[in-house]
Order: sequence, then structure tokens, then C-alpha cells
Amino acid sequence: MKIYRYRSEGGDAYAATSEKGVVPAGSDLFNLRIDPSAGPLDLERLDLLTPVRPGKIVAVGRNYADHAKELGNEAPPEPIIFLKPPSALLDPEATIVRPPASQRVDFEGELVIVIGKRARNVKAAQWREVVLGFTCGNDVTARDLQKKDGQWTRGKSFDTFCPLGPCIETELDPAALQLSTRVNGQARQHESTALMIFDCAFLVEFVTAVMTLDPGDVIMTGTPAGIGPLQSGDVVEVEIEGIGTLRNRVS
Amino acid sequence: MKIYRYRSEGGDAYAATSEKGVVPAGSDLFNLRIDPSAGPLDLERLDLLTPVRPGKIVAVGRNYADHAKELGNEAPPEPIIFLKPPSALLDPEATIVRPPASQRVDFEGELVIVIGKRARNVKAAQWREVVLGFTCGNDVTARDLQKKDGQWTRGKSFDTFCPLGPCIETELDPAALQLSTRVNGQARQHESTALMIFDCAFLVEFVTAVMTLDPGDVIMTGTPAGIGPLQSGDVVEVEIEGIGTLRNRVS
Repeated sequence: MKIYRYRSEGGDAYAATSEKGVVPAGSDLFNLRIDPSAGPLDLERLDLLTPVRPGKIVAVGRNYADHAKELGNEAPPEPIIFLKPPSALLDPEATIVRPPASQRVDFEGELVIVIGKRARNVKAAQWREVVLGFTCGNDVTARDLQKKDGQWTRGKSFDTFCPLGPCIETELDPAALQLSTRVNGQARQHESTALMIFDCAFLVEFVTAVMTLDPGDVIMTGTPAGIGPLQSGDVVEVEIEGIGTLRNRVS
Repeated sequence: MKIYRYRSEGGDAYAATSEKGVVPAGSDLFNLRIDPSAGPLDLERLDLLTPVRPGKIVAVGRNYADHAKELGNEAPPEPIIFLKPPSALLDPEATIVRPPASQRVDFEGELVIVIGKRARNVKAAQWREVVLGFTCGNDVTARDLQKKDGQWTRGKSFDTFCPLGPCIETELDPAALQLSTRVNGQARQHESTALMIFDCAFLVEFVTAVMTLDPGDVIMTGTPAGIGPLQSGDVVEVEIEGIGTLRNRVS
């Protein structure tokens, strides 16, 4: 099932795929109410929002060996985690704003795990039990500030630096999905999630050994090789097999 | 005015200092309702909670030159910011849990700014307009993991690693307050906030140029020299002049 969140006249609402197409599904992501009498919605006309509103955005650095290498780094012995603030969230189709403080703002297409249940000290074998599904994310990064600070937080925390969407796919094996990032239609990243150094099961165990995750929290699983800068007027798309395409403009 | 949050039979509630002492003040931090007919509460008997529930915990590294030096670092040319997750929050008197993954868990006493109004691109001259007040914080850090990872997030993000309290003081000039940290009654940190490299006004401008802060978000302003490890059974206290003492046990 694919779950969308969208702006409706009665407030933000969820929609979900059914036999009849995409239908209204209430206002609570963790208690979806599909109206059997409702007609299908026209997905193309929905004003989509991030499909989830995480309290915490945990992200993983250097989780593809070829990406670690392209920035001159070794593959890490353990996941390197960092946090992005919820204030950075950006809806599908909305505009990534390049801040004046940075001369180099990069895209980073990523598979994103959406947590479905409160999760603490989850073992890798049970990882799927606490996961609602998966979405696409763009870990937008001010590369110059990331390098200057040493710590990654500032460079990854500007408002609009965390596009998520377009939907949560709940029935998906993330082990080997094609992940593609395009800028103005041109392929820039194209890799299988099979090349992640630490897979989703490992990451859920690793992160929940540090911090309690709540429903709606997300883990961004890292980006493959091919990252690069965004310019004013660009359109950046992150497409993951089985989920869909997250599309944003750049100011 | 000092604002406390505490556990009451009717749910979490606020209390505030008045001419009559500490009196009930309703359940909304940003719309306190002091009941003029209520008698004073016995502060000693209140089950205190973190006085605020931040959506974002922004923290600043190496903001006292003597602390930067004690860990072998230079004073930074700009603030180094990182984020701690809300899952790390810990109430006054509650227990800091040392995780099995770390052999060295340190205290770091800090002055904490509590944001009162939505804040974006705030100039230093206007910083006080968006600030509700100040509290004490302990930026508990797994020092070994901080060094091992390079990135600070994991070492600073374990559950219980962010004690805040005991109250928010709304009428305070934070420019030169004595900050003291004690372990089992022995002084370990004792410094004036006047020695901060980047002061509160600078930090509010710097952080809000990166990310939008919401009411209740906090900025932890960094720790002075004297940090050190916590052992099982220790009692750690962070006292700031004009605010009070934040006290926690260690498991």
C-alpha cells in the first residue's frame, strides 16, 4: 500500500492506494480509515505534503563505499549517524532554498525508513516489526559548510534541506531497489540499495541501541555516488523503485 | 519569574513563582494561567519534569576557550552546532543511564536558552525578543564514542543524555552568571558565562540563520573547562546563578 499526505480543505489528510485507486484515508497515519464509499482521488491534482512528520530525522553518512570514496573518505567501520532538524522538512514539488551562507548546495538521494512503532534496542532480526514503510528523501547538504565545520550538522540543517516523499510504501523489500537521482532530467545517481554498507536491519538495530525512535521518526540510509551541486532553477528528482519519484525545484 | 513543570494527578502541569510563592499556572507554557485563589505549592514535594519539551535541541561545541583547550582543540572561528534528539531528555532528579557501548560518559554543565517565539533570521540586537528564558542543562557525552565517530551525534544522543531544569527563569541577564557543576558535592566546573566565546545574542542570530526555531526549542550554549567522567552511583549537579540546581543520579 502507498500512503500519501495532502493538503485538503478540512486540513491535512491521508490517502492510500486501494483496489479503487487512491482513496481518502483519514487524518491519522497510524490509524488510517479508508472510506469504502469514497471515490478515488486524482493523484495528479493532490497538493502533496511530506508523507510523514517525523519528530526525529536520523541520517547515516558514508553508507555506500563508492560515495565515501568520491569525497575522499574510507568506508566507516560502524554507521556514522547525524540528525537533521524537523524544521528542514520540505514537501514534494516545493522549493529547496540555497542559503546565502553556502556557495555549494548538493543533492543526496536516499532511501528513507519510516518507523511505525516505538522502538528501543530492536534486534536486526526483528527490524521489520517496527517499520511502517519506506519513502524517498533528499539529504540536501551545504558541502562547503560541512567541510568547514567538520561537524555536519549546520551544512545539513537549513530550512528546506530535507525533502521527503512522495508516499510511504508499506509493502516493499528494500534489499535491492534501484535508486536514481536526476537533475533537470539527467541521471546523476543510479545505484542499487544492495550496495549499502549497513543494511536497513543493521541500521535499525544500531540506531535504536542509541536512542528510542517514535512512530513517524525516520532513518535516512545514506547516498550512493554521484552527488553534485544544485543551481537556481534546477529540478531535482529522487526515484526509488517501488516507491515513486520525489521532485523539487531549486531557488 | 521561575516556571516549573511537574507531574500532577490531572496530567503534567506548570507552576510559577508569584508573591505567594510557587503557584499552579495551568498546562500551557506559552499561555500560563496563574490561579489567584490557589495556595502555594511545596516545591520540595513536586515531581519535577523538564521545564520545557523542545522539538529541537540545538547545542554548541567548544564555546569556552578553556574547555576547547582541555580537549586539545582550538577555539573555533564560528560556533560549531550539533543536535541532540528529544528522546534524550531527562527530568530533574531522574537517572542518567550509562550505555554499554561507552566506557566514558562525561558531564557537561551548560546554560540553556529557551525559545519563546517562532524565530528565523533573528538579528543579534533582537535576540531577547524571541527568548522565553533560561534553564540549566547537562550535555551528557559518551566521550569515547564522540572521538571514535568524529561526528558527535552518537556520543551525545543516548536516552537520558539531556537533563534539563529545574525551571525556566524568564527575567535574567545571562551575560555573566556563575555556572557550577558538582559531582557528589565536589566542585568540577566553576566558570562565568561571561567567558563564552559566542554569547547568547550571537548564538540566536547564528542558529536562526540556519534553521527556524519554534517555541520551546532550546539552544545549549556550551560547557566550560572541568568536564569529567561519571560513575555508577554519582550525583551530578549543574547550578547556575539566578536559575537553580539541576540534579541527577547516575546508574
